[in-house]
Amino acid sequence: MSDEIKDALAKIFDHDAGIYRDRGFMRRIGYGKRPALINIDLANAWTRPDNPFTCDGMDTIIPGVQALLDASRAKGIPIVYTTTAYRNPDGPNSDTGLWHLKVPVEVLTEGSGACAIDDRIAPLPAEQVIVKKRASAFHGTYLAGYLRAQNVDTVIVTGVTMAGCVRHTVEDAIAEGFRPIVVRECVGDRVPGVVEWNLFDIDAKFGDVEPLDNVLDYLRRNDTA
Amino acid sequence: MSDEIKDALAKIFDHDAGIYRDRGFMRRIGYGKRPALINIDLANAWTRPDNPFTCDGMDTIIPGVQALLDASRAKGIPIVYTTTAYRNPDGPNSDTGLWHLKVPVEVLTEGSGACAIDDRIAPLPAEQVIVKKRASAFHGTYLAGYLRAQNVDTVIVTGVTMAGCVRHTVEDAIAEGFRPIVVRECVGDRVPGVVEWNLFDIDAKFGDVEPLDNVLDYLRRNDTA
Amino acid sequence: MSDEIKDALAKIFDHDAGIYRDRGFMRRIGYGKRPALINIDLANAWTRPDNPFTCDGMDTIIPGVQALLDASRAKGIPIVYTTTAYRNPDGPNSDTGLWHLKVPVEVLTEGSGACAIDDRIAPLPAEQVIVKKRASAFHGTYLAGYLRAQNVDTVIVTGVTMAGCVRHTVEDAIAEGFRPIVVRECVGDRVPGVVEWNLFDIDAKFGDVEPLDNVLDYLRRNDTA
Amino acid sequence: MSDEIKDALAKIFDHDAGIYRDRGFMRRIGYGKRPALINIDLANAWTRPDNPFTCDGMDTIIPGVQALLDASRAKGIPIVYTTTAYRNPDGPNSDTGLWHLKVPVEVLTEGSGACAIDDRIAPLPAEQVIVKKRASAFHGTYLAGYLRAQNVDTVIVTGVTMAGCVRHTVEDAIAEGFRPIVVRECVGDRVPGVVEWNLFDIDAKFGDVEPLDNVLDYLRRNDTA
Repeated sequence: MSDEIKDALAKIFDHDAGIYRDRGFMRRIGYGKRPALINIDLANAWTRPDNPFTCDGMDTIIPGVQALLDASRAKGIPIVYTTTAYRNPDGPNSDTGLWHLKVPVEVLTEGSGACAIDDRIAPLPAEQVIVKKRASAFHGTYLAGYLRAQNVDTVIVTGVTMAGCVRHTVEDAIAEGFRPIVVRECVGDRVPGVVEWNLFDIDAKFGDVEPLDNVLDYLRRNDTA
Repeated sequence: MSDEIKDALAKIFDHDAGIYRDRGFMRRIGYGKRPALINIDLANAWTRPDNPFTCDGMDTIIPGVQALLDASRAKGIPIVYTTTAYRNPDGPNSDTGLWHLKVPVEVLTEGSGACAIDDRIAPLPAEQVIVKKRASAFHGTYLAGYLRAQNVDTVIVTGVTMAGCVRHTVEDAIAEGFRPIVVRECVGDRVPGVVEWNLFDIDAKFGDVEPLDNVLDYLRRNDTA
Repeated sequence: MSDEIKDALAKIFDHDAGIYRDRGFMRRIGYGKRPALINIDLANAWTRPDNPFTCDGMDTIIPGVQALLDASRAKGIPIVYTTTAYRNPDGPNSDTGLWHLKVPVEVLTEGSGACAIDDRIAPLPAEQVIVKKRASAFHGTYLAGYLRAQNVDTVIVTGVTMAGCVRHTVEDAIAEGFRPIVVRECVGDRVPGVVEWNLFDIDAKFGDVEPLDNVLDYLRRNDTA
Repeated sequence: MSDEIKDALAKIFDHDAGIYRDRGFMRRIGYGKRPALINIDLANAWTRPDNPFTCDGMDTIIPGVQALLDASRAKGIPIVYTTTAYRNPDGPNSDTGLWHLKVPVEVLTEGSGACAIDDRIAPLPAEQVIVKKRASAFHGTYLAGYLRAQNVDTVIVTGVTMAGCVRHTVEDAIAEGFRPIVVRECVGDRVPGVVEWNLFDIDAKFGDVEPLDNVLDYLRRNDTA
């Protein structure tokens, strides 16, 4: 992203934030008592090169998620990973639904290496790996019921893509009654600009965007396991 | 079930049906244009002996489902199987949610033979196998979105158990906007009586209970693939 | 219900309970920390005479619900009522969905007296009244998200009908991660037998059926408001 | 929005679209056979001045929606309006859930004039008015079940706000199995820039953004009522 475009986005965010604050938007939702860590689509199709779904920024995202995993595991906090994969992506009666009419989900075959979680952040046996078919981690999955049964009230969200699965997950999270906290350094996408404007929209209306250090402090203080 | 109990149930169903009909219940929902076949929990834990979940009646249910599969495959009708299985059934932060507090779901480990679909009715690669965590095939799964994207308007339901997963699936099906047809010979359970009273309740309020031959005729006439 | 039929049902429940217990079913889910009271369809169409939906047993149900309301209000426990009503029950593009093809929902017009909560148990302004279109209080409503945002983990369920809306609500409640407690004296229906067999199924698999006194004790001890 | 910012956004959209197209994103979902018209939050709080929720652009949006209503009514196409309103927005156990922690939903009292649909586009008795509690028209509402029961496969979406309720509705629509078509001239928001970047994200991944004339042509050709 050129400096010119960065400056333009900064200007419009600043202007819009003024309007939002005047009207009572952009409030802080804050951390709750019992968090879960939700890592969205950090599978090889997104984290490694040469896939239509490949995203940028893994040099920052992966170490950040590793730190969040360490802090969460030390406290017994529920950890959930998602991947997006299809049993029959380009056959008849496919489970891609209508989504292949917009994006190339036909390359995401369930059980393939592309759809496996990146082994730099591999799930432990007691952690959940949810195979979703749609953008949101909540849509058509057992996530909401799982979190409620675990008494979770706060979801720490990482992963990709910001303009797709992360955003939809955050919108659903607050709708379902969970406080969404998006970790600034741990979300990414594959085209410039969309991380910035989606974080702006989310922080205005759906959840708090927080720096990694702040989230790690919160997790390390937690005693709800 | 003793003849005495059978007679008593027949009497009460007859009496209740009279009240229902007088008041406008027990109507026929009928078949729609585009069906899907939904086989509930016909995995080895339910279809084979010696599991807490073992059900009766497989001598009738399995051949019936085989006939339905043949008819559906010949017409390209979407076919969905469910199983119930957990990644971490007796560990911390388990995906059994609260259900292990009522029933022995701790024996249903994802990936185990117990949770695999019975190979007498094995799924083909293009057919969906949904691993659900709850009773209903719709709850916390992509089933409703899948069926809508396939233009399905009617669900042919088989499997077990009648008092649990089959009943909840049928209730959700009509709520989601699909016509539920329960195949009389292809549903079962593990304790006497519950098949009868749950079919009675469903036929009164949620879906039509139809004999296998009638359903096979419908599938063979279908031309929506 | 004749004594003969009562005896037959008692025998079969006793027999089935033996099988369930041997296999690890019929466990107790127990009370959680933070309850809500959910009153299903105690609107005039169900609680008063001369409607196709009229139910029996209001002489017991209404005073029981009054006692539960008193105990819940004293503790600031969230209270939810449901009713079932349609904006356009017999017109084109109706919101009855497919349900009018099974049951006479065409008599339930939104805003009519029939669909208003019975004034013997009238809601206060701070209590929720959810107009639902389907059997379950959770299906197509904001109930799950509402309860989660209130940190509720237990739902005390009353109302009608046992074979329809109460049963489906209880099944969905445990699926969503809430402990269902059905108040034995405060549920009813319009045909004999269905209360008994649906309570039997629920107690085996989905929630605990408890006497009113036990539930009142629990509510009076609660301090989570 | 200054020309400088407009130019910067145009540049970044153009750059990103190149990447998306190279990778197989930005496909066309197209119109299906049976549409419904969904008007999001065109109630007075959003369409009239002096409310925290007031949006811009009603001089274009309202006439556009009037034309869509005329075309849809002429064809018997299902029409749905949403509003966002709360029974008890600032009391205890409120149905605002967690959303008042981010945005000023406490001003949206159910039954108030602010939450009534703008009378320039007033609903007819046979049209649905869904009172939602969250951003998406699908979340916690009967919309998906309603549309399926009507055999709808396509949703024509208008209204506000683009960065909130319209975007979340479109994401849910495709997830539920409906083709989302966003009418370019009939969506708006209250801060500059967000209409543009949210339409860009949607057109890349979730639904087609189409000009009003194109949508009107489609509706006028429709014969599915």
